[in-house]
Amino acid sequence: MEDPVSQRRGERELLRRLRTILAGPPPSKAPPLPGLVPFGDDMAGVDPATPGLLWTVDMVMDGVDFDSREHSWRAIGRKAMAVNLSDCAAMAATPVAALCAVALGNALSMEDAVDIVRGAEECGRRFGCPIVGGDTNSWDAPTAISISVAARVPPGSKPVRRDGARPGDRIWLTGPVGGSLLGRHMTFEPRIAVAGEIARRLRPHAMIDISDGLALDLSRILEASGCGAVLDETALDAAIHPDAVQLAARDGLPPREHALQDGEDFELIVVAPPDADAITAPGLGLLPLGQITAASGLWLREAGGTTTPIPIRGWEHFR
Amino acid sequence: MEDPVSQRRGERELLRRLRTILAGPPPSKAPPLPGLVPFGDDMAGVDPATPGLLWTVDMVMDGVDFDSREHSWRAIGRKAMAVNLSDCAAMAATPVAALCAVALGNALSMEDAVDIVRGAEECGRRFGCPIVGGDTNSWDAPTAISISVAARVPPGSKPVRRDGARPGDRIWLTGPVGGSLLGRHMTFEPRIAVAGEIARRLRPHAMIDISDGLALDLSRILEASGCGAVLDETALDAAIHPDAVQLAARDGLPPREHALQDGEDFELIVVAPPDADAITAPGLGLLPLGQITAASGLWLREAGGTTTPIPIRGWEHFR
Repeated sequence: MEDPVSQRRGERELLRRLRTILAGPPPSKAPPLPGLVPFGDDMAGVDPATPGLLWTVDMVMDGVDFDSREHSWRAIGRKAMAVNLSDCAAMAATPVAALCAVALGNALSMEDAVDIVRGAEECGRRFGCPIVGGDTNSWDAPTAISISVAARVPPGSKPVRRDGARPGDRIWLTGPVGGSLLGRHMTFEPRIAVAGEIARRLRPHAMIDISDGLALDLSRILEASGCGAVLDETALDAAIHPDAVQLAARDGLPPREHALQDGEDFELIVVAPPDADAITAPGLGLLPLGQITAASGLWLREAGGTTTPIPIRGWEHFR
Repeated sequence: MEDPVSQRRGERELLRRLRTILAGPPPSKAPPLPGLVPFGDDMAGVDPATPGLLWTVDMVMDGVDFDSREHSWRAIGRKAMAVNLSDCAAMAATPVAALCAVALGNALSMEDAVDIVRGAEECGRRFGCPIVGGDTNSWDAPTAISISVAARVPPGSKPVRRDGARPGDRIWLTGPVGGSLLGRHMTFEPRIAVAGEIARRLRPHAMIDISDGLALDLSRILEASGCGAVLDETALDAAIHPDAVQLAARDGLPPREHALQDGEDFELIVVAPPDADAITAPGLGLLPLGQITAASGLWLREAGGTTTPIPIRGWEHFR
């Protein structure tokens, strides 16, 4: 009999099925390995022998994550590296090295190919992350770039996972969000430096970077942590990026929708205990957003006191 | 002024240019980091803090490395993992974990997508290499799969690089070669187990796996080591795989050409000191091939005593 689940599509469903294959069926569920990170976080542990070492991989593809008719190959290479460094930031880990695999469209020149790696290398080098190896291929199809990055958490500290949020925790953003499509999705700064400071000073319970949208990525923290969140309307509106306002003026959607649902901001969502706020937040440039609740779901508390559900929409592959 | 080099194509030339970018210009050439592997070997060091830990990445693409009209997605996923495990074998390293990134063609079903990861997972598990994370994407283009594998060399030993061959060393193969296109390029067994035995018992000076062809991959050892090689005609003919004979009967090329130039055999070329032979080789099933010479070039010594140059041809991307 065909499992009806197999008829469904979407990255979320695919990941659910892969988790079952990769982690094994529930009965054989082994205790989590020390220092390792649960399947599905921004980075994974390499092996139990080196608990402080994590790694991640991201693939960027022409026509999906960039447009080679519009963006330079150097900027494209830069983005391919930066999305990985953003994953490191989300775990408060320091990148140490990268591998770069490319499937180059046959229309690319040698200069184009070199520019991809040059862009990736320049971005990595700024964050102490040299490219130490890779794989070069070409084909009659659009270009895809897959970069893997290894990173370390400082001795004595642990990676900041996405499953540690607790009711009462405060939610912060490292910067305003929305409208990244106007250009920031190619030029964003991975939040490596501030993530290190946040980890040291706020002792956050959970972090994630916004790749698929504030609402969707925050919901991943909530799901992994088994709790909910209420965002404050005034705080949320103060976290709307000017680009979201500009994009809203074009397409007629409310700026707040862009802030909640646009992907590729690559700011961090930070969940930290409430007592950490007053002392530490000002120096970090964090924007308050709301707080974690025991009740599930994602809610907006309007200025008048009413709470309404926030729809969880965002970018999903394989639909 | 345009560098005339920029007009040239080919993976070899691309790698030469990337090496300059990634390793920096010669004046700033730093001493090699302890435990690390020079750029361009089968695997790279992750960082100086964990000298025994290596990693590699390989991307396989529909229409290039497999044909989704002909091969099952499970077999394709298996190959995507196995090519990486073969790189581990080439360094005599033991795989510890993998990351799997996919760009799925939008025509794939959920079952197809799951089968890719299932095939990769099954192959990895047999060699102690679980998939611990990844990245799932989809697009309107052929499917590409990028797997990264981390591996360890046993405590106290070093990875077997490709730059250590010395004149007088003997050259061996872990199995017969040629004609992999008839099917073995999808079903080959990564030589992890025998590689560990070879490293322990033969103390080899250099190893590489045959991905692009015996002649081309052996020439990479010769180039990295600054020496040449003479293959013995009788020995070479004894190392021709039956598939090469079968393919030769179809296309009219000599079987020996297939043995020398066909890619994706994924047997290991082993270069070991001459005194290691008699004692150790029989139990390992190695095939003798010839020996390393101080004079450069790759040569065939015919039964009559004449030596003729072997053309170095094989698979090259980005031509």
